[in-house]
Amino acid sequence: MFNDSSTRIAAGLREWIAAAAPGARLPSTRSLVAEYGASPVTVQKALRALASEGLVEARPGVGTFVRAVRAARPSDYGWQTAALGSPPARIPRQPAALRPAANDVIALHSGYPDRELLPERLVRAAFTRAARGDAALSRPPTAGLPELQSWFAAELGEATPAGITPPAPSDVIVLPGSQTGLCSVFRVLVGTGRPLLMESPTFWGAIIAAAREGVEVVPIPSGPGGPDPDALARAFEQTGARAFYAQPNFANPTGAQWTDALTGRVLDVVREHGAFLIEDDWAHEFGIDAQVAPVAARDDGGHVVYLRSLTKSVSPSVRVAAVIARGPARERILADAQAESMYVSGTLQAAALDIVTQPAWRTHLRGLRHQLASRRDLLVRSLAEHVPASHLEAVPQGGLNLWVRLPDDTDLPRLVRACEDDGVLVVSGDEWFPAEPTGAYLRLNYSGPGPSAFPRAAGVIGRHLEH
Amino acid sequence: MFNDSSTRIAAGLREWIAAAAPGARLPSTRSLVAEYGASPVTVQKALRALASEGLVEARPGVGTFVRAVRAARPSDYGWQTAALGSPPARIPRQPAALRPAANDVIALHSGYPDRELLPERLVRAAFTRAARGDAALSRPPTAGLPELQSWFAAELGEATPAGITPPAPSDVIVLPGSQTGLCSVFRVLVGTGRPLLMESPTFWGAIIAAAREGVEVVPIPSGPGGPDPDALARAFEQTGARAFYAQPNFANPTGAQWTDALTGRVLDVVREHGAFLIEDDWAHEFGIDAQVAPVAARDDGGHVVYLRSLTKSVSPSVRVAAVIARGPARERILADAQAESMYVSGTLQAAALDIVTQPAWRTHLRGLRHQLASRRDLLVRSLAEHVPASHLEAVPQGGLNLWVRLPDDTDLPRLVRACEDDGVLVVSGDEWFPAEPTGAYLRLNYSGPGPSAFPRAAGVIGRHLEH
Repeated sequence: MFNDSSTRIAAGLREWIAAAAPGARLPSTRSLVAEYGASPVTVQKALRALASEGLVEARPGVGTFVRAVRAARPSDYGWQTAALGSPPARIPRQPAALRPAANDVIALHSGYPDRELLPERLVRAAFTRAARGDAALSRPPTAGLPELQSWFAAELGEATPAGITPPAPSDVIVLPGSQTGLCSVFRVLVGTGRPLLMESPTFWGAIIAAAREGVEVVPIPSGPGGPDPDALARAFEQTGARAFYAQPNFANPTGAQWTDALTGRVLDVVREHGAFLIEDDWAHEFGIDAQVAPVAARDDGGHVVYLRSLTKSVSPSVRVAAVIARGPARERILADAQAESMYVSGTLQAAALDIVTQPAWRTHLRGLRHQLASRRDLLVRSLAEHVPASHLEAVPQGGLNLWVRLPDDTDLPRLVRACEDDGVLVVSGDEWFPAEPTGAYLRLNYSGPGPSAFPRAAGVIGRHLEH
Repeated sequence: MFNDSSTRIAAGLREWIAAAAPGARLPSTRSLVAEYGASPVTVQKALRALASEGLVEARPGVGTFVRAVRAARPSDYGWQTAALGSPPARIPRQPAALRPAANDVIALHSGYPDRELLPERLVRAAFTRAARGDAALSRPPTAGLPELQSWFAAELGEATPAGITPPAPSDVIVLPGSQTGLCSVFRVLVGTGRPLLMESPTFWGAIIAAAREGVEVVPIPSGPGGPDPDALARAFEQTGARAFYAQPNFANPTGAQWTDALTGRVLDVVREHGAFLIEDDWAHEFGIDAQVAPVAARDDGGHVVYLRSLTKSVSPSVRVAAVIARGPARERILADAQAESMYVSGTLQAAALDIVTQPAWRTHLRGLRHQLASRRDLLVRSLAEHVPASHLEAVPQGGLNLWVRLPDDTDLPRLVRACEDDGVLVVSGDEWFPAEPTGAYLRLNYSGPGPSAFPRAAGVIGRHLEH
């Protein structure tokens, strides 16, 4: 009747299982050996057959158990609706700039530079060294590895003119990315329900962070010349705000770089109102025709809170940023960082420090500058040729983006979809406005993969814009 | 008059500098060569001498500049007092358990296992491999590397009994540490000013996270037998709370592990009140006489939100944790994580996955169990012998801590200081109480360096307790 002993044992156990409760434990191998007069190997073979049928599951060292038939029944999480209440703020679920892209599309949407612009050999070598070092197995202080704090302080110190006290290493707090820094700084310096002045348009990540922290965003008009300092002063007076968030160097998306005069004006306004300037120096390594001049280097009164990230220029996996702040503000931010993340992985900090202190890092940055220049210029030329209806208010002197004005009657969602259907990813400028958009814009990033396709991409945009 | 040319050039430049403004650029090397009739090497020697005196600073590739005398003048950050207002909540600046310790002290205070308990070779090998892989240069999705999501889901799935739907990989959100997870979950599931039920005593990091998020903490008495389910039910009714934070397996600090019956009771209470159980499975790998049985494995209705970290068992530098949640709660947490940190470093995720999927990881965990057993037993014996006035309500079956009751009239701050003066770091149990302490406790961690010194440490505690 049975071909072999294991088949016989399996058949017997199938009957046993049919009568057993889900989760019940099968008789032990030893007792099955005794019951069926078979060898342990034969019993194991029978159990494996039952497991492969999904009837039982083995938990090594514990035993074999009857498996429940796990039907994919619909779950009812309706009770959570009452428990969760309304969402606290509208936070977009998937910002367009974070969308992954397939290899066969032309990606002008992302904010992250393509791998060919990253210091790949330096990153791999630094991680390999960090794997051998002390940092791989130890816990750094909350404020950061002291050597990395010193490096961030020295970098800003080098830009600090005579007569102004440069930051101390202890003014530096290392964080797991500048997005965390934005959230922390908005929470600590502004707080729920209180006003925060922000350039408009500005970085979507800052808009999301402000929404998360529940601060009341007050938009300050900004363009290729930077923010309007008179509008800034009026907004401080009218709202009683104590903080202004801005990107003074190669702002995302406009590309604006503040002049010395504007920097002076803004600092005066901020000081007069006893307020903070939250400076997001996101493009520190992305100067093309001009170098970055941090506003923070011109202040030693604790008015400028300076955010500096290595993620974009070094590697997305080197998720390391710093906040430089002085006085009680620094204490508040540190206490918040400790409550939020305790510390940043020592491996990431050691790798970051390794990379930025290599002579080859300087060499890499010089090469990067030339690559960004030719990418930017190619995209500018491609737009001029293929998208005659587009208008660039200014060619940015640095950064990674063009901020392209389109005719006012452009149906942006339709245009974005049509381009995507033709394999070109672009983002509607609307995502960069904390309030209503003031015009139809595209933000085009020229640091993505395959710049040789820029003319083709511009052709696609131009064709769909005409319809 | 001058010993050599470089001294002569330096003297000339000193005069020049005395008349120059801070920050002024010195004449170029070429023009100095011409002016002084000296070689470029001699001019450089003079410039180096001035730099070593602090008079000038060289900026490679740019030039040499007059340095300002940077007197350490006192800074006035008084204006920040008005801008910052009162601190939003009392967050302890430096939790005692995070204090670094010198090599010559006996550290019973920290929550982090000593390096000898970590899988050092696995960690180093995994980082070395990650340095060569794709993750070192790419940006993973916000919710995490799909393979790591699958691993976390499978781990909880293996513990899930028949009849209950195991979590899907998409229910997993990878976070940069469980402290970030606590903040996110408290913020999203509870919210500012709303009540959160918490075991008391409990993990100080959760107390800090609750303070940061401004939730109203409602303490639920808990001890070596876990929380009192009747007190839990009453608190849900009286406060209208929708969430309960707990550590059901080897709670920090009490060491409690919930029985099956208690787990069932708590789940019933939570379900009856349409609420969440926030399960912090901090000690997943630290079972000694018993294994961890996650409560989340017994719920597929979205009531249990499960936090699981790899930081303590793998390495402090592998700062990777996961939240497993279902239904709208999962969507809310993911949106919050995206706004807060965007994503977790791919290198850390790849290294974490590499480590936990090696066969050697299982071997390591078996060895760890034995080491923790002998460390725990030695500390228990040492206390019995040298601190007769101390009382252990229960010897924990897992975890890293003893929760030691002392006589009610113990002056804890004095005892902690006296022990520290004698080279033994301990922490007052007060830090583990979200409300007033119910007794005098020490939390002693037996996973620190040098367990052979436990008897000596107990001797120090016993001696100071008598005085």
